[in-house]
Amino acid sequence: MSGSVYGELFKVTTFGESHGKGIGCVIDGCPAGLLIDMDTLRKFIARRRPGQSKVVSGRNESDDFEIVSGVFCGKTTGTPITFFVKNNDADSSSYSDLEDKYRPGHADFTYDVKYGFRDYRGGGRSSGRETLGRVLAGAIAKMILDQMGISVFAYTESIGDYKVLDLDLSFRDKSPLYMPDRAVSEEAVSFIDELKREGDSVGGSIRCNIDNLPAGLGEPVFDKFDCELSKAIMSIGAVKAFEMGDGTLVSKMRGSGNNDAFFLNDNKIEKRTNHSGGVLGGITDGSLVSFSASIKPTPSIRLKQKTVNRDGQEIDLEIKGRHDPVIVPRAVVVVEAMASIVTVDMLFRNMSSKLSEVIDFYR
Amino acid sequence: MSGSVYGELFKVTTFGESHGKGIGCVIDGCPAGLLIDMDTLRKFIARRRPGQSKVVSGRNESDDFEIVSGVFCGKTTGTPITFFVKNNDADSSSYSDLEDKYRPGHADFTYDVKYGFRDYRGGGRSSGRETLGRVLAGAIAKMILDQMGISVFAYTESIGDYKVLDLDLSFRDKSPLYMPDRAVSEEAVSFIDELKREGDSVGGSIRCNIDNLPAGLGEPVFDKFDCELSKAIMSIGAVKAFEMGDGTLVSKMRGSGNNDAFFLNDNKIEKRTNHSGGVLGGITDGSLVSFSASIKPTPSIRLKQKTVNRDGQEIDLEIKGRHDPVIVPRAVVVVEAMASIVTVDMLFRNMSSKLSEVIDFYR
Amino acid sequence: MSGSVYGELFKVTTFGESHGKGIGCVIDGCPAGLLIDMDTLRKFIARRRPGQSKVVSGRNESDDFEIVSGVFCGKTTGTPITFFVKNNDADSSSYSDLEDKYRPGHADFTYDVKYGFRDYRGGGRSSGRETLGRVLAGAIAKMILDQMGISVFAYTESIGDYKVLDLDLSFRDKSPLYMPDRAVSEEAVSFIDELKREGDSVGGSIRCNIDNLPAGLGEPVFDKFDCELSKAIMSIGAVKAFEMGDGTLVSKMRGSGNNDAFFLNDNKIEKRTNHSGGVLGGITDGSLVSFSASIKPTPSIRLKQKTVNRDGQEIDLEIKGRHDPVIVPRAVVVVEAMASIVTVDMLFRNMSSKLSEVIDFYR
Amino acid sequence: MSGSVYGELFKVTTFGESHGKGIGCVIDGCPAGLLIDMDTLRKFIARRRPGQSKVVSGRNESDDFEIVSGVFCGKTTGTPITFFVKNNDADSSSYSDLEDKYRPGHADFTYDVKYGFRDYRGGGRSSGRETLGRVLAGAIAKMILDQMGISVFAYTESIGDYKVLDLDLSFRDKSPLYMPDRAVSEEAVSFIDELKREGDSVGGSIRCNIDNLPAGLGEPVFDKFDCELSKAIMSIGAVKAFEMGDGTLVSKMRGSGNNDAFFLNDNKIEKRTNHSGGVLGGITDGSLVSFSASIKPTPSIRLKQKTVNRDGQEIDLEIKGRHDPVIVPRAVVVVEAMASIVTVDMLFRNMSSKLSEVIDFYR
Repeated sequence: MSGSVYGELFKVTTFGESHGKGIGCVIDGCPAGLLIDMDTLRKFIARRRPGQSKVVSGRNESDDFEIVSGVFCGKTTGTPITFFVKNNDADSSSYSDLEDKYRPGHADFTYDVKYGFRDYRGGGRSSGRETLGRVLAGAIAKMILDQMGISVFAYTESIGDYKVLDLDLSFRDKSPLYMPDRAVSEEAVSFIDELKREGDSVGGSIRCNIDNLPAGLGEPVFDKFDCELSKAIMSIGAVKAFEMGDGTLVSKMRGSGNNDAFFLNDNKIEKRTNHSGGVLGGITDGSLVSFSASIKPTPSIRLKQKTVNRDGQEIDLEIKGRHDPVIVPRAVVVVEAMASIVTVDMLFRNMSSKLSEVIDFYR
Repeated sequence: MSGSVYGELFKVTTFGESHGKGIGCVIDGCPAGLLIDMDTLRKFIARRRPGQSKVVSGRNESDDFEIVSGVFCGKTTGTPITFFVKNNDADSSSYSDLEDKYRPGHADFTYDVKYGFRDYRGGGRSSGRETLGRVLAGAIAKMILDQMGISVFAYTESIGDYKVLDLDLSFRDKSPLYMPDRAVSEEAVSFIDELKREGDSVGGSIRCNIDNLPAGLGEPVFDKFDCELSKAIMSIGAVKAFEMGDGTLVSKMRGSGNNDAFFLNDNKIEKRTNHSGGVLGGITDGSLVSFSASIKPTPSIRLKQKTVNRDGQEIDLEIKGRHDPVIVPRAVVVVEAMASIVTVDMLFRNMSSKLSEVIDFYR
Repeated sequence: MSGSVYGELFKVTTFGESHGKGIGCVIDGCPAGLLIDMDTLRKFIARRRPGQSKVVSGRNESDDFEIVSGVFCGKTTGTPITFFVKNNDADSSSYSDLEDKYRPGHADFTYDVKYGFRDYRGGGRSSGRETLGRVLAGAIAKMILDQMGISVFAYTESIGDYKVLDLDLSFRDKSPLYMPDRAVSEEAVSFIDELKREGDSVGGSIRCNIDNLPAGLGEPVFDKFDCELSKAIMSIGAVKAFEMGDGTLVSKMRGSGNNDAFFLNDNKIEKRTNHSGGVLGGITDGSLVSFSASIKPTPSIRLKQKTVNRDGQEIDLEIKGRHDPVIVPRAVVVVEAMASIVTVDMLFRNMSSKLSEVIDFYR
Repeated sequence: MSGSVYGELFKVTTFGESHGKGIGCVIDGCPAGLLIDMDTLRKFIARRRPGQSKVVSGRNESDDFEIVSGVFCGKTTGTPITFFVKNNDADSSSYSDLEDKYRPGHADFTYDVKYGFRDYRGGGRSSGRETLGRVLAGAIAKMILDQMGISVFAYTESIGDYKVLDLDLSFRDKSPLYMPDRAVSEEAVSFIDELKREGDSVGGSIRCNIDNLPAGLGEPVFDKFDCELSKAIMSIGAVKAFEMGDGTLVSKMRGSGNNDAFFLNDNKIEKRTNHSGGVLGGITDGSLVSFSASIKPTPSIRLKQKTVNRDGQEIDLEIKGRHDPVIVPRAVVVVEAMASIVTVDMLFRNMSSKLSEVIDFYR
């Protein structure tokens, strides 16, 4: 038990169910003195809100958050920061008929087995709405990184067979799919429209880049930078694969092609290529940290499905309600949030690596 | 700092450098009463030893371990179990000329940046030899799982472009590559021979299945079963991607094809397919847990490479010594070890999920 | 950083400042299936509320709590339980003149040094009001213990020189001091009245007994039952000493007098005495667990004090506002709460001590 | 389970049993670059060795340690440091008749209950010999503190009724009891001689001072500096009480007498008194950190005792072997070790308290 806490020094706890009283998080270990820019915060969390375009769920959830603790006079105090968001649009009625049914691809069955019963309304704790707490915590982490000149930028790399070809990062926020290739994005939107009509859904993938990171982050041998990223990204519902740098491609590579040669650039040690995705031995090497996540298709589909119920009867299932035909676009900001949380935690954890730096710190 | 400890309740710390005095691990949290079968232990760790066939390194490391603590009269006592293996074949001389050189694909540069200097002999702490501690701890975990009827079985799924086609698990241990397809294994061996002559290396992938797991393991939302697996597997040096179930394939799937339908089998709720790899919402669902890991090609190759040294000079590098042309076969047992450690930890963590079960336990 | 989380498996995070928006806690790791008895909950937290008698602060804080998550249909679901209490009676005006003054015996100076600034209103995070989150979490822990037949009972053992002589536990809740000796309690009340007039305060001590605990709880060598208790109890503001069993008295004892002889009582192994307070080697031995805590006098006193301000000027300080002349009576329930949280955590942690019991659990 | 690991960033795991193959520790999170002075190390651990004077056990344990990992070219590398000490003088024969007997005041019974059986030789894991691992780790911590100008100094404050009156710290190391008062030390030695003849033992207390600590250490609200100290010190076998500053005395104090007034000393904010023992709100305030520990009398006494055996029979017990008539003098260095470990961990944990300092660190 106790799996709702992430991080060692920048420790994030999320709480709340989809259709309970509310959703939120507590951040313990945020340094004092961070100015909270409410506008940045609101824009960041707006990116995961449904109801923004026709490719995502038609639900109109309110994400009006409240900062309950840890901020005084607009600045963090070093004490736990608590965010709370009331659940307003919690229309549970469309779920009541799911009380005893096990939706394929969902956690209904496993929660029932593990806990003996479950809050069946809207997926309860396993709902995508849980990620709101992550995004709020991630927004704080991202503000810290901003102050340090570090950027975390994720985007949709593919939707089904539609894959970004002509990368134009400036287009990302103009695409309803956060897909930075105008032509491909438009094709993907059409494809999703078709899927919606069919009552089906599709998967996709997200790439995330962390830029301007200092070299030296990551704690071998178990808490390597990429291991922590992997755990955090895989913890986002629907993520089924994590790839660092070239990822699965390395299995077909030769050493002579996969090794990134070091060279000197303006007296700085750099790498000519970056197959490794910015880490060596689990420690950041100063190049761009790059990873990708594969997202499964939304399991809630309108098409009739075979399943069983709690009483052990085989039944036909038709899922009503407003569901995203593709999770990917709304997950982009969640990936950025989790990557930011990991990065901040690893920045803090690295501070006692060299004795000379510890001594200097306290001088 | 402090990244050499894995697990919450079954807590494993590995220690030691490739060419220091020795290598080992401490397991804190192993239950009392496990009979230690020395023969099983020896066989398990023998699987990662080099010098066993022509496809792996010619080094003849001794892996004679000693149990220093935690076992009395052949049984675990519940106190920390310490394994220690002396480094015998520690011929550091072939490394002394690497003291100030940064090998591409290795952690030389990043250790130097992070810690200010490094034990350069044989990769020091970032050496593959560190995994010996993991395999010893994993052997204990596997013995616990054996007692519970749970099996953990990994195998080489691909080497470069050679991929298992006609799966025959019984052949795994007969293949020098632990590749359970006689024909493909033989082809891959020939390919590796060629690579050796060329002084190059290649990557591959490993699949691992955990069978007979109870449903209900995994702690949402951050410590899901697959998240913990992902972190543990990615922590094995050279692993660059982790895939749960169908993994990256899900990005191209539709919900109607990716959802695993529930049905009743002999009054038990099962799934007709297992795209998800045995977890739903991060909790095991009682079906086979299946994941794969992509391994990069050995970075130590004989071919001349461009790199830089510590003093910031560009140099040519020729790596001598005995190196594996492919890491995959020796990593198979490491994957099994880490998967076993995770599984035992999650089994223990799940025990307080239901109040009724806690009350029964103490009755 | 990150010090607001306690526990391994039953993990409690408290949040909130005295005069911020509210106070609360998140409990991660509470088993599913606990029926929440709101009446029990309300009664328990009422015990720490000020304004109940003339011996405690005249403030009339509302402690109306809300359960934000983790409970469905009146039962815990196994997901994080969040309690939230709005700060109503947050009259900050009497504190505004304390903004830059360092009150002796308070954490004003140290928070400023550590974090650079502080929420000065009512002590901010270091306020006694923070304990409300602990009491709410402790109430849940206590309900779990109730189900297992384990009781946690604390009482005021002394106030200044007034010490319980004729122990009558049934009187505890009738004493405004939670002091189970009618005559001594009445004398102590008179003494406190006098102190109030003088504008001074006094310390005291609390004893806590945990009854009916199974033997075997506690994880040697660092997470012994008494070590965890000690940390948790010392974390309550104003506690300056922790004593297990006979506590400081042991320093004057001889082995022959301090050893507790084992004997057989109805075929059960028991101890004739209990100097050790129910633990041996940090593991519960089945006898009554008994410890005490020494509480310092309330640092907020009306009497004029010398101090300095933030600008480094020496000043005279007169503290206004409504303050408890003695913290002890309100701390009794906080001690019970923390002891309950520790006990539940140790009960869960002990469940994987014996392999045979783990195997039985999953059979 | 898993209670043999202490610390968050400076993480110490001890392992080993009294009469097993050996004893040791792993330190994970020691910064790179610490020069290991072997002479300092040997002197430090020599202080806990038995056989040094007539007031301690006549056993002549060898404490020849080996550094197995984490040190290269005389400096720490940032990777886990492992110490190993072989058990030489492991004469188990005098213990074999204790196999099924439960010694009063020892953990024999509780280990048997918790784990089902135990390594009965010399107390196994609950032996005082386990502290050797702590002292080795503490020596490393102390070397770090030395580099930062922080001292940790403990001494025997009392043995039975003999209490230091005329404190002369320079005498500490001349007293076989580490008791810095020549006259009292001599009286106590005579008293102990008498006890030895009688076959009895006695308790005592230890005071420890940490000097020159920066203000700001300690993580409210659960991981306060004094809470962490309390847990660590209580974890030393035989410690039954922990007192911060004035400790139990505060229960009788008034606020006007217990509050430490701030004043300006050479433009620095200091306190005129230090009743609090150097912490306020759990955070160090820049004054001397001072605490004390009460140690119970050695439970192993020659006098005949009543007890029971494993089979549930009442028996008479006569303990043979060489036992310390008082544990205190050998525990002094263990207290210093644990206090040093806590201090280093809290120094590291504090480094991310202020955002401005984190930004400066990475600039």
